[in-house]
Amino acid sequence: MTDDDFIDLRSDTVTRPSDAMRDAAATAEVGDDVYRDDPTVNELERRAAEAVGTEAALYVPSGTMANQIAVRVHTEPGQELLLDRESHVYRWELAGAATLSGVQTRPVDAGARCVPSPERVRSEVVTEDLHRPGTGLLALENTHNYRGGTAVPTDRIAAAAEAAHDADVPVHLDGARVFNAAVALGVDADEIVAPVDSVSFCLSKGLGAPVGSILAGEAGFIEEARRVRKLFGGGMRQAGMIAAPGLLALENVDRLADDHANAERLAAGLDAVDGVAAPEPDTNIVVVDTERAGITASDLVAACDDAGVGCVEFDTHTTRFTTHLDVDADDVGDAVDRVVDAIADRTA
Amino acid sequence: MTDDDFIDLRSDTVTRPSDAMRDAAATAEVGDDVYRDDPTVNELERRAAEAVGTEAALYVPSGTMANQIAVRVHTEPGQELLLDRESHVYRWELAGAATLSGVQTRPVDAGARCVPSPERVRSEVVTEDLHRPGTGLLALENTHNYRGGTAVPTDRIAAAAEAAHDADVPVHLDGARVFNAAVALGVDADEIVAPVDSVSFCLSKGLGAPVGSILAGEAGFIEEARRVRKLFGGGMRQAGMIAAPGLLALENVDRLADDHANAERLAAGLDAVDGVAAPEPDTNIVVVDTERAGITASDLVAACDDAGVGCVEFDTHTTRFTTHLDVDADDVGDAVDRVVDAIADRTA
Amino acid sequence: MTDDDFIDLRSDTVTRPSDAMRDAAATAEVGDDVYRDDPTVNELERRAAEAVGTEAALYVPSGTMANQIAVRVHTEPGQELLLDRESHVYRWELAGAATLSGVQTRPVDAGARCVPSPERVRSEVVTEDLHRPGTGLLALENTHNYRGGTAVPTDRIAAAAEAAHDADVPVHLDGARVFNAAVALGVDADEIVAPVDSVSFCLSKGLGAPVGSILAGEAGFIEEARRVRKLFGGGMRQAGMIAAPGLLALENVDRLADDHANAERLAAGLDAVDGVAAPEPDTNIVVVDTERAGITASDLVAACDDAGVGCVEFDTHTTRFTTHLDVDADDVGDAVDRVVDAIADRTA
Amino acid sequence: MTDDDFIDLRSDTVTRPSDAMRDAAATAEVGDDVYRDDPTVNELERRAAEAVGTEAALYVPSGTMANQIAVRVHTEPGQELLLDRESHVYRWELAGAATLSGVQTRPVDAGARCVPSPERVRSEVVTEDLHRPGTGLLALENTHNYRGGTAVPTDRIAAAAEAAHDADVPVHLDGARVFNAAVALGVDADEIVAPVDSVSFCLSKGLGAPVGSILAGEAGFIEEARRVRKLFGGGMRQAGMIAAPGLLALENVDRLADDHANAERLAAGLDAVDGVAAPEPDTNIVVVDTERAGITASDLVAACDDAGVGCVEFDTHTTRFTTHLDVDADDVGDAVDRVVDAIADRTA
Repeated sequence: MTDDDFIDLRSDTVTRPSDAMRDAAATAEVGDDVYRDDPTVNELERRAAEAVGTEAALYVPSGTMANQIAVRVHTEPGQELLLDRESHVYRWELAGAATLSGVQTRPVDAGARCVPSPERVRSEVVTEDLHRPGTGLLALENTHNYRGGTAVPTDRIAAAAEAAHDADVPVHLDGARVFNAAVALGVDADEIVAPVDSVSFCLSKGLGAPVGSILAGEAGFIEEARRVRKLFGGGMRQAGMIAAPGLLALENVDRLADDHANAERLAAGLDAVDGVAAPEPDTNIVVVDTERAGITASDLVAACDDAGVGCVEFDTHTTRFTTHLDVDADDVGDAVDRVVDAIADRTA
Repeated sequence: MTDDDFIDLRSDTVTRPSDAMRDAAATAEVGDDVYRDDPTVNELERRAAEAVGTEAALYVPSGTMANQIAVRVHTEPGQELLLDRESHVYRWELAGAATLSGVQTRPVDAGARCVPSPERVRSEVVTEDLHRPGTGLLALENTHNYRGGTAVPTDRIAAAAEAAHDADVPVHLDGARVFNAAVALGVDADEIVAPVDSVSFCLSKGLGAPVGSILAGEAGFIEEARRVRKLFGGGMRQAGMIAAPGLLALENVDRLADDHANAERLAAGLDAVDGVAAPEPDTNIVVVDTERAGITASDLVAACDDAGVGCVEFDTHTTRFTTHLDVDADDVGDAVDRVVDAIADRTA
Repeated sequence: MTDDDFIDLRSDTVTRPSDAMRDAAATAEVGDDVYRDDPTVNELERRAAEAVGTEAALYVPSGTMANQIAVRVHTEPGQELLLDRESHVYRWELAGAATLSGVQTRPVDAGARCVPSPERVRSEVVTEDLHRPGTGLLALENTHNYRGGTAVPTDRIAAAAEAAHDADVPVHLDGARVFNAAVALGVDADEIVAPVDSVSFCLSKGLGAPVGSILAGEAGFIEEARRVRKLFGGGMRQAGMIAAPGLLALENVDRLADDHANAERLAAGLDAVDGVAAPEPDTNIVVVDTERAGITASDLVAACDDAGVGCVEFDTHTTRFTTHLDVDADDVGDAVDRVVDAIADRTA
Repeated sequence: MTDDDFIDLRSDTVTRPSDAMRDAAATAEVGDDVYRDDPTVNELERRAAEAVGTEAALYVPSGTMANQIAVRVHTEPGQELLLDRESHVYRWELAGAATLSGVQTRPVDAGARCVPSPERVRSEVVTEDLHRPGTGLLALENTHNYRGGTAVPTDRIAAAAEAAHDADVPVHLDGARVFNAAVALGVDADEIVAPVDSVSFCLSKGLGAPVGSILAGEAGFIEEARRVRKLFGGGMRQAGMIAAPGLLALENVDRLADDHANAERLAAGLDAVDGVAAPEPDTNIVVVDTERAGITASDLVAACDDAGVGCVEFDTHTTRFTTHLDVDADDVGDAVDRVVDAIADRTA
């Protein structure tokens, strides 16, 4: 098989920029963004804020930086960060909250809700006293990656945020795939974002931009965030060249529905295999459980790789497949055939 | 009621030094301990190490400092600290792990075991990779304060420690009341401590010293700990004056059995009240649940205070009473009478 | 005056990408660099390491991130960072050494040497003991921005590095403009870099790339640096689109000589004005002192801006002008005329 | 020679508690200070605040903790701490400002003034912007230990503090020996303290208490400091036993004049030796320079130790001798004889 045959479902971060994006990069008007002289970045920040209904926005190199800037701006060292134990901020950001902001993580198990219930938020929020760290921030995630790309209903976000706000605790939403949530829920992103104080989202996942994420919130918050971006080393120069594809990425929201349809196809195809469970996905992430088939995730990843399909290990027996704009329905059909065969070989 | 009538069961930290301890302070041979010239401190550190069966020990101003020094010496910033979600290190040390050591807390619910099972340790230990913080330390607690002064059996500690060690993760034991555990379990403290890499214990709780705690472990560990003690501001001068009572405190181990018997009396007396649950305690801590009686902990604390008994709120409907060397069986009898009356008034 | 007439000498960071760079971006082969799948980034890192003679290199969003990653990887919290009091790492990186790495800065005044003498390094290096933080890193800078774009001779770097190494202290070189130094000194960059343990350099300054910097050093160091890049939020996805112009930037080394010649022209032109001192520059940075003319830097910057020339305030009476690939000899001639007139107006 | 013959001039921290202090410890009324129930600690904090003319005060285990709490309460991470390069906070507190508070040190050379001039404060204070860390605190020291126990005149402190306050920068005074300064200057300590926002002083140096220091300032500042004390592990229980000697220590202020007279005697005796310079001291610290005699400090310390006199190495050829309440004029006469002989042996 040639490399071109490989169907890469490891992540929607693997999407390659379209020709239009490449053209946009090649012709972008640029300037020095550290001086705020890059018109394309300025335009992207304005449009990104609009897209999620906030006053202002900031372009940053990665979703991790967007989240960690939010933690640093919202909190003081010695406070607590309340979040789901399967959230990206907790699992995959290298203990940034502790080591960049001096903030203690208080993970709770949000379960299938993906977001702690308002009761749970109330019972976990700690009021600072002489002995106890106070809660400085509640962080939520939508869609929720590790829990299966779940599109968390707007009212759940709102209820958790209200409980936090009642205790004067601000709320950050890791919305790396918030537009997938919006499309799946049939609402505008700004409706999801309305109850929270800041949101991050990635231009470089399903929206297809090559590089970059957005942190959005009130103007004063973004002003402080700009300074922390510099501290963390995220100040870039003629960033318009990558912001220009980002502007086009903002137009890719509606087509996320195709990725969701493809994910549904993929899940249906794999769920039909004996010993394999692949629940119907909310969005573009399919989590496949092969425990009953007696196949570990690391074996499945290796077998799929041999068969020309990319996927990633999630846990001992669960594997993640992600659809995105570089794979169409035919690719997904092919991928199902290859994975089914690979599983058959293993269980033969 | 005069102040002398007040029966203070808020904590075993309230114990006042005995006459013998006061004499010891008054006559202690002292020197400048920062130069390691204080013979009484040196003797205390030698004897404390013996008492828990380690190579070396360090005298520090508080149990919190002992634990936080251990976290800092065992870990590197950007690692994780695995511990019970009801442990002292997590709940009541002001996010020290994050803000003093840059370490992310990974609390788990150890439940009635008080210590995570070895299976749980294995599943929660994270191997460092490009995206994930690795586990730097497992912290345990014995007796377990917030779970009711539970004396955790030696084999549970050993099993958790073994699981951690298998993954090259060191283990610290917050043994603030480790001698209460030893007495309750009928073992020597060094048997409890043998499986772990470091232990802290308090001279100023049930053992009755006015000030100070011990951090114990291997000689190299204690050498590093001595430097961190200086950094945290715990280097004291003629500390022999408080170390001398500490030496006498080490002789108070056997009498902890009296506190446990008194706690049992207290629990039995309160558990007999309708609507009140006070399970038989392992050691000197009695946790009283007044939910069925419709009394909140803050109400109970206030009512007891009016009635001349000190106790502390634990949670909405649970209140902690602690026995110690300043209260005898008669005091406990009186305390039960007062609390029973106070509850009767509330529920009348 | 139209915007196009504006001669922007604020910094060499303002350079706009060339048509060739834009084409390179538009046609770059890309992949997900967090998975190390971006062939263009991989090629850039290979070529960048070659250019400075190190084993390995890492592409990062900014020079600040390159320097701060180096500080974090080379040191442990509680150590000292020895550096010049006018260095970029100390002045303009928002206290990153302290707040991202827990490292105490020990600035010394390197004066016109730009690099502390070996004697000074020896006398300032602190050997860790119970009371004193030990030296964890020596950071140097070449060319030295704030001291006038000075090209620091290779032997000065080597002497300072040797003194540090004798005390087992590693050395990082902030070589944001190390190729300007190499061209000015008539040596290859790897000769300057040979005595140090790590070096950062910017693709987005005089070399003309739109975005990004390089951190280079031994393979093991770069492996750790890659993890810290993720922690700081510098992991980018299809970064090949900006790495491709970076590859072309590496071919812009020789033409830096033109910038230096232009800077010399500019300095000569301004130094001729009564009351103005503009010493002959080593490289592309001209520092202009207008104290005798009674003009403050903030006034000069404003006056130049009105006259169509960009420059930046350095200190009360010193102003920095920087030449780069977007200004040619004619532009510089025009700039001199405009600035001379602006000064004349002020002193009239 | 017996140990009793040894004249220990290493530091005034070596003073042993008097019989009155031992009695005070033995009979102190105590309680649990973490609950603020220790009447002796409360009385000490009240009296200590009075002694320096502040609203409130806090008892802590060490001078280092007092200073580091002040740094943490006054600043935010990412700010700068302006201080003398020979100050205790910078040299001997293990980089605490960086690693406990995330604050960057900006040391300046205050020279023989011991305190930066107001002009210097003004030129070094940095106003926070997008690129630069702002100044969060100015720390001064009086008496200045490493510069020879200098009693810094009140107006110098006031001038530096005024310059800082003009820029909205608070000021902390490390007054470990502030009462030595007051006695030497013939003023009350509160006059020295009036211009600053917080002050630390040691009960365990010349005042003779066995353990402990004081941090003093406004009531709101001390409330925050109490919480940071808990975080750093400085919360002690029946601390009245060491606070009681501390109360007596506050009565030892006037007798510091004897230590100063003894230091003058010592300096005169040593300065008379050929090749030895021992300038007349301001207070109780004598710095002896033996460079012309060709004797290094480490040799002198060893020779004095053999001869029965304790002293400490300061720099290559300078050695510190400190007088205190455990040495009288006769002891100092003996010490001079022994040191003179020891030097004679060395230079024979």
